[in-house]
Amino acid sequence: MNLEEAKSKYKQLIGKQNAFGQAMAMLHFDGATGAPPNSFEGRGNSLSFLSGEVYKAFINKETDELINFLLDNKDDLDDITKRSAEEAREEFDRTSKIPMEEFMEFMKLRNDANHVWETAKLENNFPVFLPYLEKLIATLRRFANYRDPDKKPYNVFLDDFEKGYTMDDYDKFFSVLKERVVPLIHDAVPKSKDIRNDFMKLKYPVDKQKILTERIIDIMKLNRDCFAWAESAHPFTMGINKKDVRFTTHFYEDNIASALYSTIHEGGHATYELNTADELMYTGLDGGGSLGLHESQSRFYENNIGRSREFTSLIHPIIKEIFPEQFSDVSPEDFYNAVNKPEASLIRVEADELTYSLHIMVRYEIERMLFNGDIEASDLPRIWNEKYQEYLGVTPPDDSKGVLQDVHWSQGMFGYFPTYALGSAISAQLTFHMEKEFDYKADVAKGDLSRINAWMTDKIHKHGELLKPKEIINYACGEDFDPNYYCDYLIKKYSR
Amino acid sequence: MNLEEAKSKYKQLIGKQNAFGQAMAMLHFDGATGAPPNSFEGRGNSLSFLSGEVYKAFINKETDELINFLLDNKDDLDDITKRSAEEAREEFDRTSKIPMEEFMEFMKLRNDANHVWETAKLENNFPVFLPYLEKLIATLRRFANYRDPDKKPYNVFLDDFEKGYTMDDYDKFFSVLKERVVPLIHDAVPKSKDIRNDFMKLKYPVDKQKILTERIIDIMKLNRDCFAWAESAHPFTMGINKKDVRFTTHFYEDNIASALYSTIHEGGHATYELNTADELMYTGLDGGGSLGLHESQSRFYENNIGRSREFTSLIHPIIKEIFPEQFSDVSPEDFYNAVNKPEASLIRVEADELTYSLHIMVRYEIERMLFNGDIEASDLPRIWNEKYQEYLGVTPPDDSKGVLQDVHWSQGMFGYFPTYALGSAISAQLTFHMEKEFDYKADVAKGDLSRINAWMTDKIHKHGELLKPKEIINYACGEDFDPNYYCDYLIKKYSR
Repeated sequence: MNLEEAKSKYKQLIGKQNAFGQAMAMLHFDGATGAPPNSFEGRGNSLSFLSGEVYKAFINKETDELINFLLDNKDDLDDITKRSAEEAREEFDRTSKIPMEEFMEFMKLRNDANHVWETAKLENNFPVFLPYLEKLIATLRRFANYRDPDKKPYNVFLDDFEKGYTMDDYDKFFSVLKERVVPLIHDAVPKSKDIRNDFMKLKYPVDKQKILTERIIDIMKLNRDCFAWAESAHPFTMGINKKDVRFTTHFYEDNIASALYSTIHEGGHATYELNTADELMYTGLDGGGSLGLHESQSRFYENNIGRSREFTSLIHPIIKEIFPEQFSDVSPEDFYNAVNKPEASLIRVEADELTYSLHIMVRYEIERMLFNGDIEASDLPRIWNEKYQEYLGVTPPDDSKGVLQDVHWSQGMFGYFPTYALGSAISAQLTFHMEKEFDYKADVAKGDLSRINAWMTDKIHKHGELLKPKEIINYACGEDFDPNYYCDYLIKKYSR
Repeated sequence: MNLEEAKSKYKQLIGKQNAFGQAMAMLHFDGATGAPPNSFEGRGNSLSFLSGEVYKAFINKETDELINFLLDNKDDLDDITKRSAEEAREEFDRTSKIPMEEFMEFMKLRNDANHVWETAKLENNFPVFLPYLEKLIATLRRFANYRDPDKKPYNVFLDDFEKGYTMDDYDKFFSVLKERVVPLIHDAVPKSKDIRNDFMKLKYPVDKQKILTERIIDIMKLNRDCFAWAESAHPFTMGINKKDVRFTTHFYEDNIASALYSTIHEGGHATYELNTADELMYTGLDGGGSLGLHESQSRFYENNIGRSREFTSLIHPIIKEIFPEQFSDVSPEDFYNAVNKPEASLIRVEADELTYSLHIMVRYEIERMLFNGDIEASDLPRIWNEKYQEYLGVTPPDDSKGVLQDVHWSQGMFGYFPTYALGSAISAQLTFHMEKEFDYKADVAKGDLSRINAWMTDKIHKHGELLKPKEIINYACGEDFDPNYYCDYLIKKYSR
């Protein structure tokens, strides 16, 4: 085999991975958007089979040797192929330690568990979900042991979702937040209790909310030639490649903030996927650099932009035009205050910017206890409620509004949540550096996000996975990640 | 290998085919419904790769031997496995004659051609589509030659879309229609020219048309646990399995008949897919018996039910409720006459029941000439217009309303159209036999289609592909297919 042959073979391998990836992503997307309820069984079978095919196509001696050959000739490779092969090496080593049958069973289990969780949440029935949760946890423990028996399982998962991060790192990160932000929360929440946000919970017909969604998409400049959106029970973003990006949103008739801010949040994820460099397409490196970085973009657009005074002033007249009655006595100031009111609330995705990280801390601490063997899955509802009482001073009235609220665990994703807090913190650091270069708030006030998007594209989006997450932060900020920017930002915003 | 092992292996093979089938179907469905325009390239790559994987998973020595082993032990097999293996044998022999690379290229070509056709139709630009059409035709000719060099290519395709049918069969079928129906058309069209149907072309807002679609779905009793619908440029039905059936429809604001009758038509296809027998799921036999039979169901619900006096009277008040202004001066009789007005028109999918088969004849004759070498692809616009003048006395003002109107050729489907006329004819024969058993029209008048659906399920749907198409017609009607029922039906309906 010569190097050109190897590169061509490698390209075909990536192409096949992309094809399987797109197929499985579309099945998931369809399942979350247009599919009828009883389709879940057939989809689960198909996903399980496809995951077996993916496994076989990738985990074999030929691929192993191909990757080694490329890495043995590293110095003669272009940057993209080199980095892609390094990533492939890691993925190969990670996956090959799990037997194929178990991998396929896990895919089926995830599909079933997710389906059962949906019912459980709807019917407030944790016990019906519990056996699936237990199975997921047992499987993940087993997988972690296959992969790295010397590592604590939770550290294996944390590293999966944010490379290089361990419980030590997150413990430090959260301790900074605890020290600097929690006192602020305890101060700001009681003082804000009279801020009116009742008008956000009037009746907002869904068809008109859809018009607002379209307007937000226009303001964010999401390119509709490469982007489309749909409705699902739980908002998410999916990037097949930079020319095929989707997000979903969910409308509640009695809550305009939900779809509004989930649109901006998912719009941030979509902006990232749409702006990776052209030359990364079909290379295996055309996604986001990490979950934390991805979340830095969604949280940046949602909060640093979307909850800024400039942005709320920009969209206040648009909302008033679409919903003249509901907003008849709402001033721009009222609107700004309402979407920034710090509240000890129950639901993470509807939390304000200040208390959001407490919701994450609860989940992080629970996951850590769960995988360190301190609690069992059956303890989760009780522990959940205790932690909410401890950190936020509220107790969920039922499990639907408590331990069942998030989709992640039902898809076997433990260790994912901390990246949300990390992303929020990175977004504050990015905002600080952007503001040093230009007055981005003036652009927001004018409704022109092009310079902001271009800055983020240059600093973050274009790299895709070509650089490592920590390299990307260094490229963007000229320094390592530092959670104090986040604390400074929150303190400045909420001390007023 | 013992028989149990072989059956288990075969089941896995079918499962894999189902998984790939679902993946590719979802990619197509997504491409036609929610996908952004620029996604087509990546989807084409993925479909091409997946088609290669399907090929490899199926066309190999192991599968060949497995099928042979099963068929060598035919007498010890249950009916379902036996019939499925027979079908698999035929499919294997058909596909294995085409080299994998060419098969994959064809998939990519279809995706590209379909994309270019969409633009060509939109922009009335046949020349931009022509090179793709030429490539498709050349590829299909080559494939036909690989598969059966002694057969005329068009006969190869006709057999693909309706097993056992050749040009001789269709020539006979169409000559009966020509003899008995064409004179009726020439008589009825001029006499009907004063029937008013102007009110069908008023402004019917799309969001309200969607409400009508939902009402029609309710009347047809499509089970929403297993069925969902979406919008696309061209209506179609997709059955992943009996628990996962979709159709699409398309709304024109200035034409209420279009979405109304395409909903009923696709609803007929969906009814078929939803009612195949439970035991056929995951056996490879859970689709419709043939395209002709499938079309017999869509055309039955669209015409024999949907354009009956009883059905139009049933939905007249519903339409009037949704569109009180547009239907303010429309009586049930006006509505019935409007949707049955025979007209020499340009667009097949909007043709009335009587002239519909002329649209098919035009296409059949053109396809036959094309593959018999009498004309070239570049002649198509001219020939198309000449044939429309000859058969319908109208000439398309442009190619968008002429040769570019249908999606089929852009997907490499030649030989498909005749099954539409065949299906219409079968539906008349079925209607005749149903009416001998019970007064189905009285059920329609009451708005209760349950007995009609049950009859069709027993006679047609439940068999899936377990019986051969001709066996199904015999089971349902106690006789062979006979086009004279169709002529009798049309003559009776339109002689009034």
